[in-house]
Amino acid sequence: MNPRTGGERTAGSTRGAAPKQDRSRATRQRLLQSAVTCLAEHGWSGSTVTVVAEHAGVSRGAAQHHFPTREDLFTAAVEYVAEERSRALRELPTPASARAAVETLVGLYTGPLFRAALHLWVAASNEPQLGPRVTALEARIGRETHRMAVELLGVDERRPGVRETVQGLLDMARGLGLANLLTDDSARRERVVAQWARLLENALHG
Amino acid sequence: MNPRTGGERTAGSTRGAAPKQDRSRATRQRLLQSAVTCLAEHGWSGSTVTVVAEHAGVSRGAAQHHFPTREDLFTAAVEYVAEERSRALRELPTPASARAAVETLVGLYTGPLFRAALHLWVAASNEPQLGPRVTALEARIGRETHRMAVELLGVDERRPGVRETVQGLLDMARGLGLANLLTDDSARRERVVAQWARLLENALHG
Repeated sequence: MNPRTGGERTAGSTRGAAPKQDRSRATRQRLLQSAVTCLAEHGWSGSTVTVVAEHAGVSRGAAQHHFPTREDLFTAAVEYVAEERSRALRELPTPASARAAVETLVGLYTGPLFRAALHLWVAASNEPQLGPRVTALEARIGRETHRMAVELLGVDERRPGVRETVQGLLDMARGLGLANLLTDDSARRERVVAQWARLLENALHG
Repeated sequence: MNPRTGGERTAGSTRGAAPKQDRSRATRQRLLQSAVTCLAEHGWSGSTVTVVAEHAGVSRGAAQHHFPTREDLFTAAVEYVAEERSRALRELPTPASARAAVETLVGLYTGPLFRAALHLWVAASNEPQLGPRVTALEARIGRETHRMAVELLGVDERRPGVRETVQGLLDMARGLGLANLLTDDSARRERVVAQWARLLENALHG
């Protein structure tokens, strides 16, 4: 254990390294989760490294040790939460119906991650420092979400039109997320999802 | 003519009133158009009344005469441009195909008005001063857009599922607008529009 950290000394440097790494990883994860929460609640202009560090209960210095710039912190945060979400989704059993698959996919766009990502995309459209990184991140998340959608729906993309059908469905899910930004749109959304699940069922398996 | 404005005196107050009203209306329209341009290009945090007044070539005092607060200016601007857009759309002949109708509707979400509105919605989600006004504005624009979509598509909303199909299409259009925020998404969008126009043709008229 590094004596500068002032932590309790354990027997041998090898045994001490693992808990230190664990603590470092836990701090990093707390920062990433706090960054997404702050972005979703306060938007880009209200989300500074200081605000996130405070929310995570971490010193500003420790936050900057993990993430040298504000851009590093927020792009890493959106990417981390997107990966966590993908992991959780991969563990789900394949849905029994198109309706259940569409509900799961639309659900991806109505939670705090979408809200955080939306603030980041919109900020990136005006901030040259953020633009290229967020564009690359959006492309990665987009590809991964498309892959998950194809699996959840259990469709074969080699059939003509299937790829574009799935893409349009994800565009609709993104639009439903946007419609949920200012008001609770869940009642309307449920009816739209039921109808579009029927359309998809016919289009993909009909 | 009000002597305080220092303008050239014309013969009689009645003859002078109309040109003055015209100038006032023209100033107002320039401010509204500049507000949408600034919002689309610089986002909410970069769009102050001063920036808009400068862009419109109007003094800050004149801008504040028309719009006492920043919130007044930007909500009026998004509403004005949405109304101009509706007027232009109502003058179009009814499209010959579902494809043309879907293209027109998706086109509503890929121009500077959508970009400006998006900045306003996202800012409103974090700014209590803006929230209720933008929520009311979004509801009005949403209803009007839905009405236009029903007309363009030439469908009967009394048939079960039609209303939700149209709503989902507009959600998809909104999502396509969002996908166009950071990169030029037009090639992908064209393929998605072609495919969903086919699916909708079957769903709505099949």
